[in-house]
Amino acid sequence: MCSKKVPEELYLKTLSLEPENQETPIPFVGNEHVHSSLFYRRNHFPYPQSPAAGVTIDGLVDSPGFISLEDIQALPSRTVETVLECAGNKRSLFEPKAFGEPWGKGAISQGKWKGVPLKALLGKAGWDKETAVEVITAAGDAGERPDKKDVYAYTRSLPVEKAMDPDTIIAYEYNGQPLSFKHGAPLRLIVPGWYAMASMKWIERLTVSKEAFEGPFQAIDYVYYPHKNSRKDAFPVTTMNVNSIIQSPADMEITKEGTQVIEGIAWSGEAVIELVEVSTDGGQTWAEAQLEPRSDTPYTWTKWFYEWPEAAAGEYTLMARARDAGGRQQPMQAFWNQKGYGYNAVETIQVKLK
Amino acid sequence: MCSKKVPEELYLKTLSLEPENQETPIPFVGNEHVHSSLFYRRNHFPYPQSPAAGVTIDGLVDSPGFISLEDIQALPSRTVETVLECAGNKRSLFEPKAFGEPWGKGAISQGKWKGVPLKALLGKAGWDKETAVEVITAAGDAGERPDKKDVYAYTRSLPVEKAMDPDTIIAYEYNGQPLSFKHGAPLRLIVPGWYAMASMKWIERLTVSKEAFEGPFQAIDYVYYPHKNSRKDAFPVTTMNVNSIIQSPADMEITKEGTQVIEGIAWSGEAVIELVEVSTDGGQTWAEAQLEPRSDTPYTWTKWFYEWPEAAAGEYTLMARARDAGGRQQPMQAFWNQKGYGYNAVETIQVKLK
Repeated sequence: MCSKKVPEELYLKTLSLEPENQETPIPFVGNEHVHSSLFYRRNHFPYPQSPAAGVTIDGLVDSPGFISLEDIQALPSRTVETVLECAGNKRSLFEPKAFGEPWGKGAISQGKWKGVPLKALLGKAGWDKETAVEVITAAGDAGERPDKKDVYAYTRSLPVEKAMDPDTIIAYEYNGQPLSFKHGAPLRLIVPGWYAMASMKWIERLTVSKEAFEGPFQAIDYVYYPHKNSRKDAFPVTTMNVNSIIQSPADMEITKEGTQVIEGIAWSGEAVIELVEVSTDGGQTWAEAQLEPRSDTPYTWTKWFYEWPEAAAGEYTLMARARDAGGRQQPMQAFWNQKGYGYNAVETIQVKLK
Repeated sequence: MCSKKVPEELYLKTLSLEPENQETPIPFVGNEHVHSSLFYRRNHFPYPQSPAAGVTIDGLVDSPGFISLEDIQALPSRTVETVLECAGNKRSLFEPKAFGEPWGKGAISQGKWKGVPLKALLGKAGWDKETAVEVITAAGDAGERPDKKDVYAYTRSLPVEKAMDPDTIIAYEYNGQPLSFKHGAPLRLIVPGWYAMASMKWIERLTVSKEAFEGPFQAIDYVYYPHKNSRKDAFPVTTMNVNSIIQSPADMEITKEGTQVIEGIAWSGEAVIELVEVSTDGGQTWAEAQLEPRSDTPYTWTKWFYEWPEAAAGEYTLMARARDAGGRQQPMQAFWNQKGYGYNAVETIQVKLK
């Protein structure tokens, strides 16, 4: 299956303009490197006025200070191709409904970033790896939250183990071009395998800390709360759950009977996709789809397709279920949580053949 | 309430590219004349290759023949400002779900068309008003249907009474410019008050007929089938049902407690809007909204707003219910029909205040 040329009149779907939250029309995007104009946008705040042209490193480091964009670009680079998926992707599918931006299936994109490993920058500043517990990143976008009085900059932390992953990079290029303004220029974090709240844009400060960070975007948002009326049993949102989308046919479509090609993508933050199964009878029976994996990139989505032979006229519930190499499989029922994160129940659509 | 300036990065929401079906992001569009680039697009087929530069009139007329675009533009003109709404608007809200394009709330726009009354063109051709029953219009877009083998041009008919309405026009201009290609250039029908399947684009032929037309876009589609498993009690889709949308706040939004302004639009194909009521307690109690009607245009939507004073923190179900001057009111339950037309149940959203 070749990548579809993106038509001119294809647009992001707008959920909100202030802040700007827009989805990629994922049924139509099959390219390995989503063009920055079609990359989904998720913001908490207005776009920052003047993002810093570099980053300040402080906390548990020998040589705190500012390192400029030019100096970062002069360091040995690393290029990472990865999916970025919003933690709230598919939120609108939860039953009962969960409050928050009602994303459909399009808060996900993929591309190639070039930058410098975070650990290289921290190494240059002489960070104390032994004592460090987290690396706190403060970004340039700020504003008010509905639940607080003060103004907050978007600030989150990464555990030291994830900060030390060579693929966790401070990126300055996307798809061979400097980052675009709306996608984090001049510098952003890219944290492959995790939901994209971690891949912060317009970063300004890295603080090496020996304590767990408790800011609202770390300890209130991006936490799974499994119970409706309490915060018991809470745990942080981190790695992307194994997941899939049926790109074609479209949900609730009416089309001609006969052989159908059902196709889509599958991905996981934990391990590569090893199996995608498709059902054309609402989950009673399953057949294996053909995968088109890429051997060179562990973090990208896997395309798949299934040829459904001589489908007769009628109404059908089609499903897709992915499994990764760690044995994680999409569940039949979504794991409900108050803030509606991590939806990854078996992908389900309906079609009518005439 | 003044019209919002349309931001640059606001786009149509794509449901399908072939044929091209895209929604206006209605929560963000408050303008009286929706720009043609943001006007919703509904197509059955690919765009036509070479639309005719005029229209052929035949059937029960004394002087059948072709009248060119220039000759039509030379006739006394009539300007009509009206809503156009897809018959399938809000289809995705039906429970149980109805197959077909799963429109949200944005398959609706509004603007100003200039053209010639249809009856003037038919009068010029010497049509037999006494014997005529319908005027059949054939458009330039054609293709295959899922349920048929042959190729069909998009063809529908209007009853003579509606054809004789002075506001039923053959239009050549939109918002002061020639029609754009995707919106029917060079000539389209505008049928105010009816769902927009009647406002056909790229028209090529008008045939005055003494028999009821039975083509598939008249007798199969655009018909209400009230029963799930039969075609009993069917009746044609014609006038737009009384309806409303809450444009702000957004569904499932989380926002700050305190006074909220709830605002939106309401419309009806039968009569002007005379009342909009709002509920902030899931329909138990209702309060009257302020209307901003336009006295000069019977076919345009009516803006409304309601100030909800000192709303306390909590989760709320907000509703809006419109009534027109003919006494028609939005029902609590939608009128279910197989093909999912005419959804106009009371507008319902949820918000969470913190």
